[in-house]
Amino acid sequence: MLTREIAERTRRFVAGQIFPIEREIVADGRPMDDALRMELQKAAKEAGVFGPLSPIEYGGLGLSTLDQAEVLEAAGTSLIGPLALNCWAPDDGNIHLLAHVATPEQARRYLAPLASGEVRSAIAMTEPAPGAGSDPTMLRTVAEEVSDGWIINGAKHFTTGAAGAAFVICIARTDDGPTMFLVDADNPGFKVGRRMPTLDRASAPGGHCEVTFEDCFVPDEAVLGEVGQGMEHAQARLAPSRLTFCMNWLGLATRAQELAARHISERHAFGSRVADHGMAQGHLADNEIDIEASRALIRRAATVIDEQGPASSASRHLASVAKTFVSEAVWRVLDRSVQLHGGLGVTEDHLVARFLVEARAFRIYEGPSEVLRWSIARRVLRAYR
Amino acid sequence: MLTREIAERTRRFVAGQIFPIEREIVADGRPMDDALRMELQKAAKEAGVFGPLSPIEYGGLGLSTLDQAEVLEAAGTSLIGPLALNCWAPDDGNIHLLAHVATPEQARRYLAPLASGEVRSAIAMTEPAPGAGSDPTMLRTVAEEVSDGWIINGAKHFTTGAAGAAFVICIARTDDGPTMFLVDADNPGFKVGRRMPTLDRASAPGGHCEVTFEDCFVPDEAVLGEVGQGMEHAQARLAPSRLTFCMNWLGLATRAQELAARHISERHAFGSRVADHGMAQGHLADNEIDIEASRALIRRAATVIDEQGPASSASRHLASVAKTFVSEAVWRVLDRSVQLHGGLGVTEDHLVARFLVEARAFRIYEGPSEVLRWSIARRVLRAYR
Amino acid sequence: MLTREIAERTRRFVAGQIFPIEREIVADGRPMDDALRMELQKAAKEAGVFGPLSPIEYGGLGLSTLDQAEVLEAAGTSLIGPLALNCWAPDDGNIHLLAHVATPEQARRYLAPLASGEVRSAIAMTEPAPGAGSDPTMLRTVAEEVSDGWIINGAKHFTTGAAGAAFVICIARTDDGPTMFLVDADNPGFKVGRRMPTLDRASAPGGHCEVTFEDCFVPDEAVLGEVGQGMEHAQARLAPSRLTFCMNWLGLATRAQELAARHISERHAFGSRVADHGMAQGHLADNEIDIEASRALIRRAATVIDEQGPASSASRHLASVAKTFVSEAVWRVLDRSVQLHGGLGVTEDHLVARFLVEARAFRIYEGPSEVLRWSIARRVLRAYR
Amino acid sequence: MLTREIAERTRRFVAGQIFPIEREIVADGRPMDDALRMELQKAAKEAGVFGPLSPIEYGGLGLSTLDQAEVLEAAGTSLIGPLALNCWAPDDGNIHLLAHVATPEQARRYLAPLASGEVRSAIAMTEPAPGAGSDPTMLRTVAEEVSDGWIINGAKHFTTGAAGAAFVICIARTDDGPTMFLVDADNPGFKVGRRMPTLDRASAPGGHCEVTFEDCFVPDEAVLGEVGQGMEHAQARLAPSRLTFCMNWLGLATRAQELAARHISERHAFGSRVADHGMAQGHLADNEIDIEASRALIRRAATVIDEQGPASSASRHLASVAKTFVSEAVWRVLDRSVQLHGGLGVTEDHLVARFLVEARAFRIYEGPSEVLRWSIARRVLRAYR
Repeated sequence: MLTREIAERTRRFVAGQIFPIEREIVADGRPMDDALRMELQKAAKEAGVFGPLSPIEYGGLGLSTLDQAEVLEAAGTSLIGPLALNCWAPDDGNIHLLAHVATPEQARRYLAPLASGEVRSAIAMTEPAPGAGSDPTMLRTVAEEVSDGWIINGAKHFTTGAAGAAFVICIARTDDGPTMFLVDADNPGFKVGRRMPTLDRASAPGGHCEVTFEDCFVPDEAVLGEVGQGMEHAQARLAPSRLTFCMNWLGLATRAQELAARHISERHAFGSRVADHGMAQGHLADNEIDIEASRALIRRAATVIDEQGPASSASRHLASVAKTFVSEAVWRVLDRSVQLHGGLGVTEDHLVARFLVEARAFRIYEGPSEVLRWSIARRVLRAYR
Repeated sequence: MLTREIAERTRRFVAGQIFPIEREIVADGRPMDDALRMELQKAAKEAGVFGPLSPIEYGGLGLSTLDQAEVLEAAGTSLIGPLALNCWAPDDGNIHLLAHVATPEQARRYLAPLASGEVRSAIAMTEPAPGAGSDPTMLRTVAEEVSDGWIINGAKHFTTGAAGAAFVICIARTDDGPTMFLVDADNPGFKVGRRMPTLDRASAPGGHCEVTFEDCFVPDEAVLGEVGQGMEHAQARLAPSRLTFCMNWLGLATRAQELAARHISERHAFGSRVADHGMAQGHLADNEIDIEASRALIRRAATVIDEQGPASSASRHLASVAKTFVSEAVWRVLDRSVQLHGGLGVTEDHLVARFLVEARAFRIYEGPSEVLRWSIARRVLRAYR
Repeated sequence: MLTREIAERTRRFVAGQIFPIEREIVADGRPMDDALRMELQKAAKEAGVFGPLSPIEYGGLGLSTLDQAEVLEAAGTSLIGPLALNCWAPDDGNIHLLAHVATPEQARRYLAPLASGEVRSAIAMTEPAPGAGSDPTMLRTVAEEVSDGWIINGAKHFTTGAAGAAFVICIARTDDGPTMFLVDADNPGFKVGRRMPTLDRASAPGGHCEVTFEDCFVPDEAVLGEVGQGMEHAQARLAPSRLTFCMNWLGLATRAQELAARHISERHAFGSRVADHGMAQGHLADNEIDIEASRALIRRAATVIDEQGPASSASRHLASVAKTFVSEAVWRVLDRSVQLHGGLGVTEDHLVARFLVEARAFRIYEGPSEVLRWSIARRVLRAYR
Repeated sequence: MLTREIAERTRRFVAGQIFPIEREIVADGRPMDDALRMELQKAAKEAGVFGPLSPIEYGGLGLSTLDQAEVLEAAGTSLIGPLALNCWAPDDGNIHLLAHVATPEQARRYLAPLASGEVRSAIAMTEPAPGAGSDPTMLRTVAEEVSDGWIINGAKHFTTGAAGAAFVICIARTDDGPTMFLVDADNPGFKVGRRMPTLDRASAPGGHCEVTFEDCFVPDEAVLGEVGQGMEHAQARLAPSRLTFCMNWLGLATRAQELAARHISERHAFGSRVADHGMAQGHLADNEIDIEASRALIRRAATVIDEQGPASSASRHLASVAKTFVSEAVWRVLDRSVQLHGGLGVTEDHLVARFLVEARAFRIYEGPSEVLRWSIARRVLRAYR
């Protein structure tokens, strides 16, 4: 099946089966419950659009990064579309990571149920101060090697997806460097604490949680990838994960633009349609420009990832550039779309209000714009040392 | 008592008595209940800072517009400070309006309890499409003159403060033009419907509501100001009301800047305090510039209002300019302050997240930026016809 | 020869043979004289990089629009690089136009010497008020049909390239609609007047001139394309021409970024390299983001032009979006690069000052940003009529 | 005479006597010659508007900083208005400095002829790398104490006003710290070199020059202010000097806005006046907002300077904030005004093109925006150490 056809199907699936129920589900930031998620995923499977970025051997569509671009943008036209297709954080990145570094046994046990949507997962990287926030070198969670495995101790927060997850991927220091571990949610040494009261809720079914590892024993088989290579694995996960976000959120921006264009086409003020007012047209055009530039940048970065691999310097650079630009462009589009709705735009009666609130975190997670700019600048400057 | 001293007292009152309880009250957008409001107002009275813009004869401080600038900015350092001082919408504008056009009897019955904080009020202007939104000429609510009074019929929405208000000021068409009416909340023809699910909640104790007037009879004494002069009265209310908002929200911006500056002074990443990173400093400086420019513009507009009256052309022009600039500057300051908090900035654990969400509507209510820009441009162009 | 290789050769040619002489040539806005232009074109031919967008049968490289992107960006790294390669306005657009609509005889007489760089050409579209400026429907230059040809009367300005051109393509009204004519520069009815004192000079060897057609007789063979199809031909010329500009100017932006990065890597202030200051890094990163987004957008538009033809709706839309975004992004990059040079950035001792001045017109010619935004918005709104 | 009246006279003087000759004088960046400057100054004296910031005892108007705001804005409506009134750099700052620290003899010899417009002066601070640029601590010019005076050695550039100046104020290191010296232009140890090819020309009659001090002997009486207090004196000069610039350039922004508003009121395109197009109105409104915010900020800073002195912390802070904001706001206004002129905006046939080019340096001299932001941020952060 051609990518264009999958994308077209995805658009129809989301518009036909999700749009009608969306506003009620997401209003006021209610997170989607897992029963509904699984129901929607079943429908997505029936529509042939489930798992765009999951490997084919695990029931996914196994699309290249470039092919994902169009499909995930279509999925993202609803705030909960990507959940229905199983291409949303943190599962998207975890699927990618497991597909590349999991042992066959780990793949069977963790990747298979995750790719099929049977379970959800979490990723435990960020730590409360003075631990690792934007700066991963400040990692304080520790894994100590014991005779038949490892004992993990530490506290994490912003553990995305933790509430209700079947397992969590945790990064911890070892004597040989940062290392990733697969931890079952029912491990007695692992506790999911408070769901942090973040602005993104409807789009975060498992929340961003505080979690603790307290003398949390895991066997040697729980090591994901190489001991001491945790940062490298995280980096390899990062470029595709950043792009997935860009694709999904870009879809939401296109939706907001449609909602705004329709709204101002139907409204009248000061003697004409709002759509005929020059300043409203200016907002629409700025939206369109932001959307097309985002789309172009995503596809260019996706092509480079496909050609040079996700861990290549060019891929990382373009993924950083795309994440920075797209997260800010999407924000501007949503913000202008609110403005184009007038007073109604700041009520949850219209989706754009919810979209704006949910999207705010995108400029921070997976690298705040400032940190990304810093790394982009340093890469530029390397040639002049 | 000098303005500077009142402002200083206000700062101390808000910091000492409101900051400690603020986060819990406003978290997750909970509107403050009236019992707490009245308790805080009692404290404000004891601190000698209650009613900065209410007339002295009604227990207020009777400050000039310019003098209000510093005091209201201090009150606005908390999201609920202005409620405690009784200088928040829509009561601020209603007090102003009543003080200027109410008959002695109306003043006794409506202004006195409003100025003292005994009751809250509402303002019913905006109507659902195809009624009056940004364009007041599209007014559809009608008041028909009958033998001993008027019968009002129509639907309004975004009726700010309606839930729990003692009375509402309603604008309706009459044969002689738009006219303002004072309607008691217990009038059987008046119904408060749904509180609209707006993004601003904690700062809107009476919500923005849908209300209906159904064969709502009011006596002749309910006419506020002149029959047919409703728009003129609304205009005279508008310039001071826009400035009040600017002052209050500017206070919140200064608070966010303080929270951000403190936060980055305590955090470390990449080998130094975040406060030592150039891009963080850039955000702080941009905040400072936005704050100082807003402050300067507010005071300039306030001076002109005091000198030339709120309905003068210069006052209206400068109030429009100030509203447009300040609402956007405040938004930028809050947005950067969120960004400076990193991931924590998008959780309700930190106030800046709530501030941002609450402030979004300020760029729309009392004139969306686009409509204001349009009117500013037309005023500029008048000279070249 | 692969595109990548041509691009690489172009980069080497421009860096090796133009950079060393560039500053002296362009300083103070001196336009390059034709002797030097021909000398550089000879060198470009020897380097195998001449004529990237000219047809192969006329000695060009005949690159597809997408392939042009990389090569023209390389050419554009110098303000006069595109002149050396013969891919600069208005000749680029005229070559494109002639290649598509010229008769064989017209091709022999006009396209051949133009493609080879033997002559330069001009385009006469824009008219002084109240004639055709941004709005082509206001065309006032008239061509009257006579027994054996046409008599053109009218005045144009901003006739790009007119000083020293061998011929001019003129658009004029006829009874059957706007029509294009090829007018030899030595036609006695054609006069080149004043070179308008525009900000772009070094990059405009033939200037932007005032010209007049006074009883200017041309034979029937002077009609270019179809009678009455002048606007359609102009439109078909427009999308590729806009993209050519984008590619060339993007090259200049990458050059400015290099100059700025090198400059701040060598300078010290306040105890460290300027390159280590966060705000300088912020500028560099913003430049990089603007450059990559521009590049991505250009290539996406180029791909669509190659696939769907330059006059397709999608091509025109994306070319408009790209022109708007890239012209503004290039301006921002140049402006930040000036700023990164400090005081030296506003002297002609450094190229960035000249770049900035020359680039200003790019946001206006071939469609001012405001007119383009208007047309983009209307295209978006079409779906909601 | 009231300030308002002086301002009104200034407006009339500039509009009546300078506007008619302005375009020809400044076109293409020609610096005004001294004969014309003196002629215009004579006319300004006759009009009673000469010397707004010079002390009364030296023939000036001796206005307070706040009073200067309105007058200098009026003077600045022409690019050469401030020269005619003798309130332009570097003479404005030098007059201010001399008025505060000159000995009676220095005042007689240097301040008197400078205040009267008889002579021009220069200021020699900035040095080529690795000397003092934005960072004054990197000062390399040296003054060595000898028996009866000092011997200065060093090279400066960006010595504003040097060509044709009667004297220069030079800052140089001594054993006791940086010190200011008055050096006559005919001192044999002082050489004025090349006028640097800066973008600001018409507004810089004496240019920004390279100068050298080679065994340049000056007597003890040449020390300006205290030995070792050069930086403090420079700082005291800086806040008023920054504000003067803001006032003058703001005037130019108001002029550009007038020119643009008039232009679009007279032009037609797409079926209506350009002034009726929403996006053009948006530019006009943004200009108006930038102008009013600049004006308000300037007056607030001026008031604080008058109340607390130019060297106070509050004065320096607000002058930095104002300089940063106003220089960028003026740039935006000029840039939009160019855009509103369409193609004509980038020709020297219209003044806005020249205004834009001349204004570019304002965002760099007297403190680049980035350096000012850095200092603003550090001042904000001081409270959180």
